[in-house]
Amino acid sequence: MTRRLSLAEATELAAHAARAAGAGEEAALSLARATVSANAHGKGSSGFSHLVDYLTALRAGRIVGNAEPLVTSPAPAAIHCDARGGVAQLGFDRVFDDLRRRAETFGLALFSQHGSYTTGELGYYPRRLAEAGLVALAATSGPALMTVAGAKAPVYCTNPIAFAASLDQGPPLLIDQASSATAFVELRRYAERGDSLPPGWAVDADGQPTTDPRAAMRGALLAFGGARGANIALMVEVMAAGLGGANWALDAPSFLTGDRSPGAGLTVIAIAPTLLAPDFPQRLRLQLDRLAKLGVHIPGRRIAAAEIELPDALVAEIELGGAP
Amino acid sequence: MTRRLSLAEATELAAHAARAAGAGEEAALSLARATVSANAHGKGSSGFSHLVDYLTALRAGRIVGNAEPLVTSPAPAAIHCDARGGVAQLGFDRVFDDLRRRAETFGLALFSQHGSYTTGELGYYPRRLAEAGLVALAATSGPALMTVAGAKAPVYCTNPIAFAASLDQGPPLLIDQASSATAFVELRRYAERGDSLPPGWAVDADGQPTTDPRAAMRGALLAFGGARGANIALMVEVMAAGLGGANWALDAPSFLTGDRSPGAGLTVIAIAPTLLAPDFPQRLRLQLDRLAKLGVHIPGRRIAAAEIELPDALVAEIELGGAP
Repeated sequence: MTRRLSLAEATELAAHAARAAGAGEEAALSLARATVSANAHGKGSSGFSHLVDYLTALRAGRIVGNAEPLVTSPAPAAIHCDARGGVAQLGFDRVFDDLRRRAETFGLALFSQHGSYTTGELGYYPRRLAEAGLVALAATSGPALMTVAGAKAPVYCTNPIAFAASLDQGPPLLIDQASSATAFVELRRYAERGDSLPPGWAVDADGQPTTDPRAAMRGALLAFGGARGANIALMVEVMAAGLGGANWALDAPSFLTGDRSPGAGLTVIAIAPTLLAPDFPQRLRLQLDRLAKLGVHIPGRRIAAAEIELPDALVAEIELGGAP
Repeated sequence: MTRRLSLAEATELAAHAARAAGAGEEAALSLARATVSANAHGKGSSGFSHLVDYLTALRAGRIVGNAEPLVTSPAPAAIHCDARGGVAQLGFDRVFDDLRRRAETFGLALFSQHGSYTTGELGYYPRRLAEAGLVALAATSGPALMTVAGAKAPVYCTNPIAFAASLDQGPPLLIDQASSATAFVELRRYAERGDSLPPGWAVDADGQPTTDPRAAMRGALLAFGGARGANIALMVEVMAAGLGGANWALDAPSFLTGDRSPGAGLTVIAIAPTLLAPDFPQRLRLQLDRLAKLGVHIPGRRIAAAEIELPDALVAEIELGGAP
């Protein structure tokens, strides 16, 4: 059984649960809006399903519910935020208008944050900037879950990268992808079906390549696309954890256990495309239409749903709110 | 037989050949320095081997030898350049000091260029910025050579991305990679050895996946890493051709035939990392050392050779200079 909720109802459900778990008013609303946005854009696994992790983390102290982000501007086009153990979304909401204005003033602007819980749906951040007419690139870090050929144990988080671009009609182009060959939940699905994994997805606990999903679940995900994908993961690590001064994956506390913040990093570069190429939004839309006609998959360009549908069991879990 | 040349001798060899093929003094020197830098960093296929293409293109008019780049600054942290059919390296050299200063002033700065010949070794651009203490990301476009699953004919150039970061000791981290699964020259090597290609490298002339290297040479390269790699290629296309207002790959004249410039795009984002995280260069070096000890391949960090070695036949070809 499922329940259909308007976006306002869904936002109140999420915010109420976050407040009950210890989030301050503003943090609860920032988290709720990002959660609902993920579901409304078809990314439920980063939305309400993931909210359960936030609620548990709030109660355990891995998220500091009343953290007051410390925002500084170390240079005219750069904004830095120390999330001080809070949710990533609050820092971003605090700076959003300022970041957009700086990008429009200087041509581009950079936001980097450290010290937050993991960022949820990464596409949320550049999508919002693209909806405001910009092009944006985002990278985030977190606790080690993924390895690369040559290494045995996990050395990176799934290290997603997201890129969005404003179009003159309709929702923006949005790329949002992990640097891992697959998601952890996919390993579980293969195991349940009794199928073998495609080669290159994972290693076992000894760091050896495996196609056995159960061995992979005890091992680590691999970066996508071999050496090139491993380099993308490294680039994300440098951009997210390096520029923001956040924990490297190897040093980040778990986002699922314990009482310490993962201390994740988030770096977002926002660019004002029409300053550089005044016809950018139209020209890009026409080009994406042309590529789509030739058979190229164009990600994003998705209109947000006006309602979301949640399993009753998930709603109940959220209403319980990660209570001990 | 090979010949060893000091970097100064190699620069004069390349510059002399470029001048003889019709390049103006400054363009010849810009091209020569980039060519020598590629060889000195072990990228000879983007260096002197590729210089032959430049020389032929200069004589055929695909490179306008005396093009005067038109540099504008549409916003305080953005520099735009219309290369007007010339070499990409000249526009970059003209703005280099300005780009660096703006990054150091504003926190980051963007250079975008259109209307050039193809850019040669892409890593050259961010490497130079990283040697000046910055972090830099570069993307470039060019004529269609590569396709993605779903499309039949080529829709993108090899769409490389490059990323460099300054360290407190030694040469910078440098990622520089095509978005294609392999290089065209690799197809030729497999064909000569009579080997089959790994799956996922290429399609045949009908757009069907193939492991036959000869069929692949009549078809197209595929993006690396499946759907995720195809998205990286799309991101590069938007950054390089979209932001710079350059030709989309589908519209770009060949860099090997005809008398029209490919009209390639180049976008470089330069970031001043120590404004954001004062210990960035040291902290990153320590982290890269740690990752390397765990078995992760760290690209770049390569000291330029003091001499380069060229086959006599290549030196002779360059001295002939693509003469008709």
